[in-house]
Amino acid sequence: MSAHEPTETHRGRTLDPWYSSYATRTKGLTVSEVRALFAVASRPEVVSLAGGSPFVEALPAELIRQAFDRMMLEHGPEALQYGGGQGIPQLREKILELVAIEGVTGVSPDDIVTTTGSQHALDLVTKLFIDPGDVILCESPSYVGALGTFKSYEAAIDHIEMDDEGLDPRALERAIREHRAAGRTVKFLYTIPNFNNPTGVTMSAERRREILEICVREHVLILEDNPYGLLYFDEPAPDSIRAMDAEHVVYLGSFSKILSPGVRVGFVIAPHAIREKLILAVESSILSPSTFNQWLVTEYLSASDWRAQIDTYRGIYAERCTTMMDALDEHLPQLSWTRPNGGFFTWVQLPDSLDSKQMLPRATSELVAYTPGTGFYADGRGRNEMRLSFCLPTPERIRLGVRRLANVINGELELIETFGGAVAGGPSARRGTEQAPSDLV
Amino acid sequence: MSAHEPTETHRGRTLDPWYSSYATRTKGLTVSEVRALFAVASRPEVVSLAGGSPFVEALPAELIRQAFDRMMLEHGPEALQYGGGQGIPQLREKILELVAIEGVTGVSPDDIVTTTGSQHALDLVTKLFIDPGDVILCESPSYVGALGTFKSYEAAIDHIEMDDEGLDPRALERAIREHRAAGRTVKFLYTIPNFNNPTGVTMSAERRREILEICVREHVLILEDNPYGLLYFDEPAPDSIRAMDAEHVVYLGSFSKILSPGVRVGFVIAPHAIREKLILAVESSILSPSTFNQWLVTEYLSASDWRAQIDTYRGIYAERCTTMMDALDEHLPQLSWTRPNGGFFTWVQLPDSLDSKQMLPRATSELVAYTPGTGFYADGRGRNEMRLSFCLPTPERIRLGVRRLANVINGELELIETFGGAVAGGPSARRGTEQAPSDLV
Repeated sequence: MSAHEPTETHRGRTLDPWYSSYATRTKGLTVSEVRALFAVASRPEVVSLAGGSPFVEALPAELIRQAFDRMMLEHGPEALQYGGGQGIPQLREKILELVAIEGVTGVSPDDIVTTTGSQHALDLVTKLFIDPGDVILCESPSYVGALGTFKSYEAAIDHIEMDDEGLDPRALERAIREHRAAGRTVKFLYTIPNFNNPTGVTMSAERRREILEICVREHVLILEDNPYGLLYFDEPAPDSIRAMDAEHVVYLGSFSKILSPGVRVGFVIAPHAIREKLILAVESSILSPSTFNQWLVTEYLSASDWRAQIDTYRGIYAERCTTMMDALDEHLPQLSWTRPNGGFFTWVQLPDSLDSKQMLPRATSELVAYTPGTGFYADGRGRNEMRLSFCLPTPERIRLGVRRLANVINGELELIETFGGAVAGGPSARRGTEQAPSDLV
Repeated sequence: MSAHEPTETHRGRTLDPWYSSYATRTKGLTVSEVRALFAVASRPEVVSLAGGSPFVEALPAELIRQAFDRMMLEHGPEALQYGGGQGIPQLREKILELVAIEGVTGVSPDDIVTTTGSQHALDLVTKLFIDPGDVILCESPSYVGALGTFKSYEAAIDHIEMDDEGLDPRALERAIREHRAAGRTVKFLYTIPNFNNPTGVTMSAERRREILEICVREHVLILEDNPYGLLYFDEPAPDSIRAMDAEHVVYLGSFSKILSPGVRVGFVIAPHAIREKLILAVESSILSPSTFNQWLVTEYLSASDWRAQIDTYRGIYAERCTTMMDALDEHLPQLSWTRPNGGFFTWVQLPDSLDSKQMLPRATSELVAYTPGTGFYADGRGRNEMRLSFCLPTPERIRLGVRRLANVINGELELIETFGGAVAGGPSARRGTEQAPSDLV
């Protein structure tokens, strides 16, 4: 047998005749065990506090129809054709208005690259910068979809400690120093400063300055991911880090949370040389972002009162957050959790004796779902933490969900008190093929 | 100065403070010199025989409007929301009808993954399989966008000789043997068997069987890219390679040429284990393909007579191809070129003394553009070859373009005869930022 055929062992073990052909990086692509459980959690009788899907039902269909009509009338053949790798200039022009709200001014449409959602930008920036073993610093915990992308390029991920003002600057400095002393290359800091996913924490203005100062001094690029910034409840978040520095920050924005994730339109603002490489990376990965969807978003931003629509969303999410906070106060007063000022999520600390992943089957059998904490760490932490989202369910469902969750947690704690160890229960579940990756966002 | 700061040399040379931070693979991402010239070629007075953009004007806007209305009426919030990484099942169901036309039967929707155009599939398959230095075999010449993607993952690209029946099986066998003898790993064969881009050549049925037999015996995966198969002129192309074998072929299809490239919807049919990895790779790169566009295509396929629309396209492209063949016969009888039975392109051999890249500035100054041959080879060949496309310009413009091209070529040959060497002329040009990557397709 030649060395180029799959060995019988490989065949036998995996039933995949191409097992020995995959790239090294492909080993990093694995289905999380947690995802299997969401096939169960997607049943309508389950109150899901697990996903990160925006409440798109609040968007009047008429606004989309109007944008579509304008697009077809004035740009039909163009919208159906290939476009440029950088994205259509008309949308990049409109994006200036959007980012100005968060303090990002002095930007030209030429500095912007549009992408297939900001996940695509995350993927391409990682592709451009990461050789196997390079270090990416990120919050502790951080966005599960980013961690997956980083792993797919064989990055070494290091979580920097944070508190209720965001990343700890001293911990960041220490980490950079230690990685370099060990001969590792630190490529960038990935941060979601506004209404962080998964914690809901917002980085203070003072911290933004400190973090930026450290990164400039140490020549570490900042990848600032800001999908939730405009969805504040009372007070806007501090200006973005990109507002303070154009040369050390790659800024990611998205229309997924303020308009629709189904159209997959995101964007990047990057320093000149990085932007040029990003355009080539876009072309290499998809030729060009959908001109159809870019025109749709452009016409939406041109013809609708999109600021009022964002205010509508803000009101809805603020009410849902308050509902969740009140329900947690009422039903789970012994726990601690974050109190976000915007966004979609709160982060709950469980007693040490609980394991949120082990508890999930029991929760889904009691018709409530959440996201276990471990997915948001690359290093196995998060066992006694969980993310709760308040973006999609109605206030009534949130109250019902938290009540059910309290039953599960209190029941589990009683069991442990009685039997002296964590007891997992509930139905086993396999990942369904029609499963939406809403647990990834 | 610390080792982690960019050196002054790097700063001075590139003006890019992040110059030393990029991944090794990023060196493979370069702007082709040729692309610069297309900024000039996109002026309306230039007859462009260079792009690969389909003639979307032939698609009645009413069909898109109808699909949009049905989508918003029946699936509005769903179309605006995140979807699954594999793509919506309704579209995957409809794709079965499409691929059955080319002999691909016995497929389940579960075998299909939808992507952001088939370029996205190309990118992800390459990401899954290619470690730096791994060999990808392809036609000689091959699709420029695929070569770019392969380079971006640091593949070693080897062009296999072809004739008017497609890939040469003996050359394929020899190449596999030689690479392995030299210790290199051959990961897959990339082929466009139908109306090949750039040559327009179609692989014969006999050759498909031989190529498949070799790849099965040698355990080399086949990546079969088929964007043009349904756009035959008189006789359909032979059944696809995937129709003969489900286990050794990853099949790429696209709606870009039969509906619209602006919606960026393509798909993959892959063996089970590869398909599972592809879904994870889609999620890692973009979370999910646009549900909005997937629903739009689904409704188009459900409500329209899409087969009749494909027949309309076939008639248009057949007429344009005939026009180009006739014009070449009339104006450039001394040259040789391929006579395609479908698709978008013909491939022209120039006299050895001509350099198609050097001649391009002169051509654009005489208001005609083509794609020089070198972009379709990873090894520097193609100097005296060029691709002409007949998909987008009207027959009148094709006649005008070929007449101008004949003037350029004959003028250049006269100059060489007089002065004894190739003389490049015409305006210099820089790449415009609004440049569409139509030269990539």
